[in-house]
Amino acid sequence: MEAIVTLTTDFGSIDAYAAAMKGVILGINPQAKLIDVCHSVQPQNIREAAFILKTAYPFFPDGTIHIVVVDPGVGTARRAVILKTPSALFIAPDNGVLSYVIQPSLSGYDEDKTRLYQVELPDKMEAVAITNPEYWRSPVSPTFHGRDIFAPVAAHLSLGVPLGSFGKKINSVAMLPLPHPRLADDGSLVGHILHIDNFGNLITDVTSTDLPPTEAISVEVGSQLISGARRTYADGKGLLILIGSSGHMEIALNTGNAASFLKAKVGNEIRVRYASTT
Amino acid sequence: MEAIVTLTTDFGSIDAYAAAMKGVILGINPQAKLIDVCHSVQPQNIREAAFILKTAYPFFPDGTIHIVVVDPGVGTARRAVILKTPSALFIAPDNGVLSYVIQPSLSGYDEDKTRLYQVELPDKMEAVAITNPEYWRSPVSPTFHGRDIFAPVAAHLSLGVPLGSFGKKINSVAMLPLPHPRLADDGSLVGHILHIDNFGNLITDVTSTDLPPTEAISVEVGSQLISGARRTYADGKGLLILIGSSGHMEIALNTGNAASFLKAKVGNEIRVRYASTT
Amino acid sequence: MEAIVTLTTDFGSIDAYAAAMKGVILGINPQAKLIDVCHSVQPQNIREAAFILKTAYPFFPDGTIHIVVVDPGVGTARRAVILKTPSALFIAPDNGVLSYVIQPSLSGYDEDKTRLYQVELPDKMEAVAITNPEYWRSPVSPTFHGRDIFAPVAAHLSLGVPLGSFGKKINSVAMLPLPHPRLADDGSLVGHILHIDNFGNLITDVTSTDLPPTEAISVEVGSQLISGARRTYADGKGLLILIGSSGHMEIALNTGNAASFLKAKVGNEIRVRYASTT
Repeated sequence: MEAIVTLTTDFGSIDAYAAAMKGVILGINPQAKLIDVCHSVQPQNIREAAFILKTAYPFFPDGTIHIVVVDPGVGTARRAVILKTPSALFIAPDNGVLSYVIQPSLSGYDEDKTRLYQVELPDKMEAVAITNPEYWRSPVSPTFHGRDIFAPVAAHLSLGVPLGSFGKKINSVAMLPLPHPRLADDGSLVGHILHIDNFGNLITDVTSTDLPPTEAISVEVGSQLISGARRTYADGKGLLILIGSSGHMEIALNTGNAASFLKAKVGNEIRVRYASTT
Repeated sequence: MEAIVTLTTDFGSIDAYAAAMKGVILGINPQAKLIDVCHSVQPQNIREAAFILKTAYPFFPDGTIHIVVVDPGVGTARRAVILKTPSALFIAPDNGVLSYVIQPSLSGYDEDKTRLYQVELPDKMEAVAITNPEYWRSPVSPTFHGRDIFAPVAAHLSLGVPLGSFGKKINSVAMLPLPHPRLADDGSLVGHILHIDNFGNLITDVTSTDLPPTEAISVEVGSQLISGARRTYADGKGLLILIGSSGHMEIALNTGNAASFLKAKVGNEIRVRYASTT
Repeated sequence: MEAIVTLTTDFGSIDAYAAAMKGVILGINPQAKLIDVCHSVQPQNIREAAFILKTAYPFFPDGTIHIVVVDPGVGTARRAVILKTPSALFIAPDNGVLSYVIQPSLSGYDEDKTRLYQVELPDKMEAVAITNPEYWRSPVSPTFHGRDIFAPVAAHLSLGVPLGSFGKKINSVAMLPLPHPRLADDGSLVGHILHIDNFGNLITDVTSTDLPPTEAISVEVGSQLISGARRTYADGKGLLILIGSSGHMEIALNTGNAASFLKAKVGNEIRVRYASTT
């Protein structure tokens, strides 16, 4: 039965861990179409995996099954889940890696959270805790649930096994306390660098819905002040502000690497102002 | 409808940009067979992408669709094209990345060119400028035409949509001023390092048609003189001259890395002599 | 004809060598399902390739065809082989890269070997030397048998061409002198680091069948002494001993990188003791 199954992991490129998962899936559903989303998430960086997933899953066809294995708690009591949304299925440890799937806009974010917390499932989503070993490889390695639990569960799911067969329904899943912009006393918006991409573009948690990028905008990053939003990476010289392909504000350097140039790191603050507020 | 679609990009491995493109393609043509040619082209290095593509596309079956996204001008007025040759289809920005497809032997190279220039399409090739938004995602991100234009265009093309539906026919495409060997006053041939591969082999712009490699040949690289061409990487000790798998002369180091050993860089000159000319 | 074909190589990620192989395979068998096992084997490191392959091939469905191209002797007199086991087919240079396929437990290991040696094929395995050019690309590049011999042979094999068509049956294949644990005079077991994975876990040649991991176990790595085996990477603080997903004893650092912390390298010795023997 044809089905798309994607993989997002922190396995890197020097091992065959992802390949072992693929072998398991194809042994159960030879028609599965396997797509690598990313295997270069920093080891155990759940937040990064959550963001990477956000930039990929909306572009896959309805019914795609996304497996995420960034799982520092593998083999412990941490729960594993299947999350079903109107357009996709996700199989992952319940460690917050699905945060942006649950709350793409983060509108429900609670300022006071500093650790993992549970949220109720939004309307039209359902989830189960993966507990039924009937669909697992046996024996299960306590250190590689990706291969022995997630992969076979994904394959059986792709064959049409109903959600409820894998375990009990649950009403909540884990959320990470994700960074989001806040309004400062001086009227500026303080955002954060969420991700630095392969080109050195600084992708921030300020989105196009937070504030429309205009000529009047300026951004402070470290000691640099950048003025006026642009449309493309080639539109203007030097450092640029623009809205990137995932709807987030980015700082880029035309034909260069903004992250190296600015010595910027994930988590660093940026400060956004409108001309009228400075 | 079955079709092979390949991807050559400078997206690297830490993001999900290539995956997003694959999701878009599969949403339009679920039967597309997606093959990664390379995602590790140096950011915005059009020349490198052109060479990498050259080492891959001739080995794919007729009708394969090759997408190339090394596109520093994304979102600007730069043109995007579909190029149809008797054996393949290419979708790329019109920035010279298809130079070796147009002129595999570079025989038409004009010494005086130092910048991008337009050449007329060779016989049996046709091309269109991609202008019809009917086949694009909407809205189009000005920073990610790979996902929003090239991917859906490739998918529709793989479903049999005729070339002319995507835009107007054009008669010329852009060429890079590619390096090629020149004859020096002393009778030696001065070539250049085009690419350094994963093994540290120095791949040059001297091809087997320029001069047949024989025992009588010698090559100067930096301060080193290497004599006599070999057949394989294990044929002789130390530095070796041979014709590599893409028909280009290579300098290799048996069981070592010639590039590190010689501190060689892409663009460096090499000097080739026959025994009779020294 | 549907068939899974996997690739394990030292081609890295900056070239299109693996893509060229895939193009060749799809040109012969458009239904082949191509899976990358790993392309980041260190250049020409046959031992590493043998281990990586071991962690992947047992998880693929029966009949999978595994191509391995880590081939420092390409183009020389070294033999290339197809090895058929009851569950899979392997295409590789006869340079020892299939050692763990031949002897997964290494029980037949001969202490005195220090170089490549030939072993008779185990029961239920058969092999041929690849000698019939009818199934190769033509001409064959002396430096890229992966593309010009292994890829087309794999594709034809996937279409049902019988083993004997590719060359003569052979009775033995090459084995590497692989590291394995030895008993020291003081009763401890001296093992070796076989592989360091993406997480910095030290994977050793001590397996769960050599000695059951218990609370009473202790391991010396460099100047560190680690006591008591754990079940998972999150089970305990600091350095941990556990049995990893491939059945090998591993040294890990909870939420850290054991290899960096211990400055450990592949080949380093470790010393395993039981409480009763110290």
